[in-house]
Amino acid sequence: MTTAYKQQMLPIEKVFRDPVHNYIHVQHQVILDLINSREVQRLRRIHQLGTSSFTFHGAEHTRFSHSLGVYEIARRICDIFERNFSIKKMGAAGWDDSERLVVLCAALLHDIGHGAYSHTFEHIFQTNHEAITVDIITSPTTEVYQILNRVEEGFPEKVASVITKQYPNPQVVQMISSQIDADRMDYLLRDAYFTGTEYGTFDITRILRVVRPYNDGICFAMNGMHAVEDYIVSRYQMYVQVYFHPSSRGMEVVLQHLLNRAKELYPENQEWFERHSELIVPFLNDEFKLEDYVRLDDGVLNTYFNHWTDSSDAILSDLANRFLNRKPLKSASFQPEIDEQLIQLLRKDVKKVGYNDEYYTAINSSFDLPYDFYRPKSNKHRTQIELQQKDGSLVELSKVSPLVAALAGQTQGDNRFYFPREMIHNQQQTNYNLFSETYESFLSHIHNGHLQ
Amino acid sequence: MTTAYKQQMLPIEKVFRDPVHNYIHVQHQVILDLINSREVQRLRRIHQLGTSSFTFHGAEHTRFSHSLGVYEIARRICDIFERNFSIKKMGAAGWDDSERLVVLCAALLHDIGHGAYSHTFEHIFQTNHEAITVDIITSPTTEVYQILNRVEEGFPEKVASVITKQYPNPQVVQMISSQIDADRMDYLLRDAYFTGTEYGTFDITRILRVVRPYNDGICFAMNGMHAVEDYIVSRYQMYVQVYFHPSSRGMEVVLQHLLNRAKELYPENQEWFERHSELIVPFLNDEFKLEDYVRLDDGVLNTYFNHWTDSSDAILSDLANRFLNRKPLKSASFQPEIDEQLIQLLRKDVKKVGYNDEYYTAINSSFDLPYDFYRPKSNKHRTQIELQQKDGSLVELSKVSPLVAALAGQTQGDNRFYFPREMIHNQQQTNYNLFSETYESFLSHIHNGHLQ
Amino acid sequence: MTTAYKQQMLPIEKVFRDPVHNYIHVQHQVILDLINSREVQRLRRIHQLGTSSFTFHGAEHTRFSHSLGVYEIARRICDIFERNFSIKKMGAAGWDDSERLVVLCAALLHDIGHGAYSHTFEHIFQTNHEAITVDIITSPTTEVYQILNRVEEGFPEKVASVITKQYPNPQVVQMISSQIDADRMDYLLRDAYFTGTEYGTFDITRILRVVRPYNDGICFAMNGMHAVEDYIVSRYQMYVQVYFHPSSRGMEVVLQHLLNRAKELYPENQEWFERHSELIVPFLNDEFKLEDYVRLDDGVLNTYFNHWTDSSDAILSDLANRFLNRKPLKSASFQPEIDEQLIQLLRKDVKKVGYNDEYYTAINSSFDLPYDFYRPKSNKHRTQIELQQKDGSLVELSKVSPLVAALAGQTQGDNRFYFPREMIHNQQQTNYNLFSETYESFLSHIHNGHLQ
Amino acid sequence: MTTAYKQQMLPIEKVFRDPVHNYIHVQHQVILDLINSREVQRLRRIHQLGTSSFTFHGAEHTRFSHSLGVYEIARRICDIFERNFSIKKMGAAGWDDSERLVVLCAALLHDIGHGAYSHTFEHIFQTNHEAITVDIITSPTTEVYQILNRVEEGFPEKVASVITKQYPNPQVVQMISSQIDADRMDYLLRDAYFTGTEYGTFDITRILRVVRPYNDGICFAMNGMHAVEDYIVSRYQMYVQVYFHPSSRGMEVVLQHLLNRAKELYPENQEWFERHSELIVPFLNDEFKLEDYVRLDDGVLNTYFNHWTDSSDAILSDLANRFLNRKPLKSASFQPEIDEQLIQLLRKDVKKVGYNDEYYTAINSSFDLPYDFYRPKSNKHRTQIELQQKDGSLVELSKVSPLVAALAGQTQGDNRFYFPREMIHNQQQTNYNLFSETYESFLSHIHNGHLQ
Repeated sequence: MTTAYKQQMLPIEKVFRDPVHNYIHVQHQVILDLINSREVQRLRRIHQLGTSSFTFHGAEHTRFSHSLGVYEIARRICDIFERNFSIKKMGAAGWDDSERLVVLCAALLHDIGHGAYSHTFEHIFQTNHEAITVDIITSPTTEVYQILNRVEEGFPEKVASVITKQYPNPQVVQMISSQIDADRMDYLLRDAYFTGTEYGTFDITRILRVVRPYNDGICFAMNGMHAVEDYIVSRYQMYVQVYFHPSSRGMEVVLQHLLNRAKELYPENQEWFERHSELIVPFLNDEFKLEDYVRLDDGVLNTYFNHWTDSSDAILSDLANRFLNRKPLKSASFQPEIDEQLIQLLRKDVKKVGYNDEYYTAINSSFDLPYDFYRPKSNKHRTQIELQQKDGSLVELSKVSPLVAALAGQTQGDNRFYFPREMIHNQQQTNYNLFSETYESFLSHIHNGHLQ
Repeated sequence: MTTAYKQQMLPIEKVFRDPVHNYIHVQHQVILDLINSREVQRLRRIHQLGTSSFTFHGAEHTRFSHSLGVYEIARRICDIFERNFSIKKMGAAGWDDSERLVVLCAALLHDIGHGAYSHTFEHIFQTNHEAITVDIITSPTTEVYQILNRVEEGFPEKVASVITKQYPNPQVVQMISSQIDADRMDYLLRDAYFTGTEYGTFDITRILRVVRPYNDGICFAMNGMHAVEDYIVSRYQMYVQVYFHPSSRGMEVVLQHLLNRAKELYPENQEWFERHSELIVPFLNDEFKLEDYVRLDDGVLNTYFNHWTDSSDAILSDLANRFLNRKPLKSASFQPEIDEQLIQLLRKDVKKVGYNDEYYTAINSSFDLPYDFYRPKSNKHRTQIELQQKDGSLVELSKVSPLVAALAGQTQGDNRFYFPREMIHNQQQTNYNLFSETYESFLSHIHNGHLQ
Repeated sequence: MTTAYKQQMLPIEKVFRDPVHNYIHVQHQVILDLINSREVQRLRRIHQLGTSSFTFHGAEHTRFSHSLGVYEIARRICDIFERNFSIKKMGAAGWDDSERLVVLCAALLHDIGHGAYSHTFEHIFQTNHEAITVDIITSPTTEVYQILNRVEEGFPEKVASVITKQYPNPQVVQMISSQIDADRMDYLLRDAYFTGTEYGTFDITRILRVVRPYNDGICFAMNGMHAVEDYIVSRYQMYVQVYFHPSSRGMEVVLQHLLNRAKELYPENQEWFERHSELIVPFLNDEFKLEDYVRLDDGVLNTYFNHWTDSSDAILSDLANRFLNRKPLKSASFQPEIDEQLIQLLRKDVKKVGYNDEYYTAINSSFDLPYDFYRPKSNKHRTQIELQQKDGSLVELSKVSPLVAALAGQTQGDNRFYFPREMIHNQQQTNYNLFSETYESFLSHIHNGHLQ
Repeated sequence: MTTAYKQQMLPIEKVFRDPVHNYIHVQHQVILDLINSREVQRLRRIHQLGTSSFTFHGAEHTRFSHSLGVYEIARRICDIFERNFSIKKMGAAGWDDSERLVVLCAALLHDIGHGAYSHTFEHIFQTNHEAITVDIITSPTTEVYQILNRVEEGFPEKVASVITKQYPNPQVVQMISSQIDADRMDYLLRDAYFTGTEYGTFDITRILRVVRPYNDGICFAMNGMHAVEDYIVSRYQMYVQVYFHPSSRGMEVVLQHLLNRAKELYPENQEWFERHSELIVPFLNDEFKLEDYVRLDDGVLNTYFNHWTDSSDAILSDLANRFLNRKPLKSASFQPEIDEQLIQLLRKDVKKVGYNDEYYTAINSSFDLPYDFYRPKSNKHRTQIELQQKDGSLVELSKVSPLVAALAGQTQGDNRFYFPREMIHNQQQTNYNLFSETYESFLSHIHNGHLQ
């Protein structure tokens, strides 16, 4: 029976219409059961891009559709590998299609541990979505575990080890997690589609035409170099243009402050929080279990923020309102070593006109490394992207692409100082005469969007 | 000051990136303020398509982006009218650009009264999103009202009268509400984009090229006939293919039953519901105010369903789980007069195997009239679509389009009977021997997806 | 060796980048050799849409890319049939993949007999592109024949019989030639892409998902009904909007008159035509062979028209200039029985102001039947489109689609009378006073684009 | 009357459907007349990409549609400049809309001097398309001149001076000719669309949102930096991926050799060439006039090649066949200084097996500089791309974009050695034993596509 389940194919392939990949094709009963599990369905209630949809209003897609997309890309790679590079044809360096199910499951489940507003939430409540992903996959209480365990004993752990990169077959690991994996390919395309920007668009059809397995992982035929190069450039552009957008980060800092305020108030107001935000209480008192975690989603947090607008604490109530009604903090970029004193000065200005500077100013630094080659001495080294020449030998990407060479090893991003919009806008219209000097002083330090 | 506000243009036009219209252009301070109001921001938390995203996973967009889209189409029409058909050029039949602001506000706000899972919610709690739209616009407590009232006294009522079709200028009314208005044009394009289907796609650029004002409303140049025809066909296809999809309706009936169950349980369990679903209580006890209504959104309802999964009532808890984890009822189509007895029989089968048939079966009838010409005797007559010939005379669309003639006056849709999936699936795998005869009987009445 | 050639697969699949299908995949050596043959390469010099590119300037694509596209669609259908509906699985009603090569060859070569400005040319020189297609495939002198004959003896005739619909397997025939075949699917999509209209767009991915073989041909799963319906509507729209555009037909009639004038002048001017248009001479004197036919292409005709502008015959020279420099005749629609006398009158007006009415007026009637079901009594009956229900039974398309029912059996198109642009334009600017009454009379008979 | 013509607007704007820009909008009578002139209509018979369509079969578009596209982009920039940056608003640094007509004419006519297979033809017959562009615009015999001269005396020369960059207003010059001008923006988008590659795609909507005039030309708002950066990257990718494709260049060298052979044969065979290729004779005997030039087009050359296949000269006939039937020379890349001796060796091999090495081998070096900043010491300096900060100051693009910095001043491309395909393919299948050693020697020098 267990074996049967592993090999059980749907009598008719099931498809899900997808705006990015046209169709998601489901062929295994196991995959369909996983999609129907409560832990995967919960991802419908977790937005893919957190506060970015406050800037790009189209970007309201969720981790559910992204997970289907990663699954689909992985499935297509398996099909290509099996058709053209099976071990039967290529020997040991080829693709062993008995790995397919573990790949598909890992692809579908790789983000299962993400929670509501993940990055912010993690930071404040010390959770870790990667560890929770492993927990969900390997805890006997979850539906996901029960489905995987029907496949064969130890299968949940196998799937989890792909995600933690400890699975022995590097082809499988790199398909799910490397500098050009199914995860990144899907999110760049998907986020580009839903934001309506074109930066993230690259030629995935061509990339899938040139991907191939080799002994130590996956690589790309040399004649696909420019498609891979274009993918790296797209990644760079999505980060600097979309993911690091100053307004989205201006909402993120509001969210951080809001959750921090709740954490600060909780010990003295336990009953109130229990009554108005029951599912988040295990996190406020730092005693949460996996069951607690999977009950949270974006809507739950937003609902509690809605309740919190009735709080008697002016800061909690105001920040909740700001978050629900999109009132981001504004910002200017700065240089870390040079501008620190100036930031202290500006904080004082903010305080002087009446804001609690702890909750109404913030530093946000967002950086990403679009690509790097393998650096043996680095403590966080990366699997570099390899191109395969006609004779089978490999060349690292940045060696042949001047564009990638320009980006390799260069982090991209900026440091920004956040403050209330009122510090720089509309003073003339309102009755700010009391503090007009302070406003003028504040404004004088911002030039072309930078502190100075 | 009021006058000044009305005419206050942004120093630099503000744009929102939009995947459907590329950019939404905001030029008036009034419009920017409305977008930033809490009532409009709330639309970010109301999905455009309700339960359709359970079938088309990409369709997670909200009424917020749709509202921006309707605004943008209306703005473009105003630009075209002002450039080519202003009253200065065309005399009385032309476009009076002093109507622009009322059009833009009505376009942006036309859906402001929509609530969480509108259609279902309305049905059960006797609310009416159109009446609430008017309320929000004309109630002095709302931010929307306060902004509109700064424009000039009576302006909120003016905007509301466009939505209720009582505004005297038929050009303005028809731009917002007719068989080919900014609202429908946006939702067809937007829903097609996010579902990833292509059915809803029509050539809006061409339609905007041929739209023109006339004495009694808006019409289209004859040479754009095929673009208008294509729009009608798209509308037809979106209804039959997307909006009426049986699986989405299978989730809708779960939602209906769930809310009905809560309503039934409430009188005996008031405290429990107050503790676990405070914001919905005013609706359960039928004493809600406008303030209560605008605090609801999809996330609030979903959060309470999440709480309700802990209920001791097995039906409430089970239906809440089914809704959160996407377990739709299944269905077969039927013919109303003919199959009624059969449906009674099938209900009994459902009951026989242990389901409460009130909460686990349903009838859902979904019909739409893609287009109709004006029928003087009909009690709900429609503004027909007029095409303008070179000599200025008008011809009604279905007179010149065989396709539209085929659809005119013909409602499209079907009647479906819903029941638990278990009635027709997988009996062999589970221990159903006790009722196997009942299952077989049930199954024997469904052929090619129809009752028989 | 012959057998070997038939089964010879390319070591690495060869792909051609295609804007419509993304990639054309070539896997057989036979197909690659056919593409490289001179008869197929010649299609690069024959435009797909004749005079339509004078109206839709993007539509400069050729029959070469269309032929690749038809091949690719046929190839994809074969893949789907082999994967899901092979005779191994389905028995006799299934797909026999040994038919694949004959399908692919017929798809690639189905238009090989098309010549320069086919429809016009055929009409005037009594050629027939379908008969010539068969000739090219089965004449031992052609490269195409030699390649096909290497596959196996009689193979050229087999391929030709698919095109003449005499091949015994109806699945093969209908894939290439029916009311929804690879040919039509490609040209609708391709012509829509290159003209930049969206009318021809339909969901080919979905259609390919639901196509399936049955005993008497190919059919479509019932759940794909709306995709098939959309295809029929697209076809209808492309005909009325693009293929029958009055301006393109205004160039077509210029071309007809030009070729007719050459034919009329030839007997008295043989030497001149031989010197200035050597390759067309065999057609002017009606003694052409297949070798003569395949040397013609659009560029050859245009080049001779270029030479003809130097002719001493004023009509030949003027019509050649009009064709090269895009001076179409203008038109008005008319009703055949009713307006005949009026047309005689208008012809006389044209003559009165100095034009040879034989060469400067024309009647053009363009009609198409978008779809029809099988009518046993009709002398030109059609293979109707069949939808397959879950139980395997078939239903004809127009029975379940109100849109298709509206179009079935209804020809679409119009009759137009063509005349020189000068009859209706700009009289005031030029010195036409001599004939001003004639112009006024002419103009008075045209109202809203129709004769009256 | 002259003034009237200049200001004469069409009563109804005329539009051309365009797949790249959706619609081309024509508003001036002058522009419509220019489009209808014989010199502009001739561009319908000149392909935009020469031999590239032999590699990318979709790329069959002509210079006619490109010219319309450049015009349309220029028109849109004028609209934006007039709306937002008119001299009335901005003073001297702003846009003077009286420049509009000269811009539009220059945009439409900038390529009017291009001929059949321009680059190759120019090289062999010492023509220069830029000089001929000026000639056509300023020669009283052309229709283009006559239309422009009706605008006002000296207007043709004004338009020509924009193209030669001598026009005094740098805003006008840079719109038509700079590192980011209407010409390049159109051809990248258009070539990407028709080839079906996505490399050339960039966000022109966003670029048009941020373009602005300043004292010394045109610049871009800093917040559009990434859109401009993306444009430079697209340009780089189109060059290396599409324009420099080795197969297209393999057809180009066939064409060069073919024309060279004709030139060599002409003196001894004048009568034969006159009879079979009359319009090219003025070029073969180097006595051509402007009238001769504008009668040539791609079809004329192809038709003569068709005639030449009957030549008794084996090389002329063979090369003509190779060109018509797409038999490109094959190639390997090489390093100029290092591999010269090797190339001599390989040429000898080619000769040894029986080919005339002058006509059957070739060197082709294709390089482009995607972007450079202004280098005062360079003899061919470039107008650098400037970004404008909030305070109005300018920053050169490569200073703020690491990607552009990586490309600035770096030419991209390669050197390739061309030879007959037979030198490396299929030797085993044919009876080449006589020369098998030579083939083996030849093949041994090519590794991973490079000479070595």
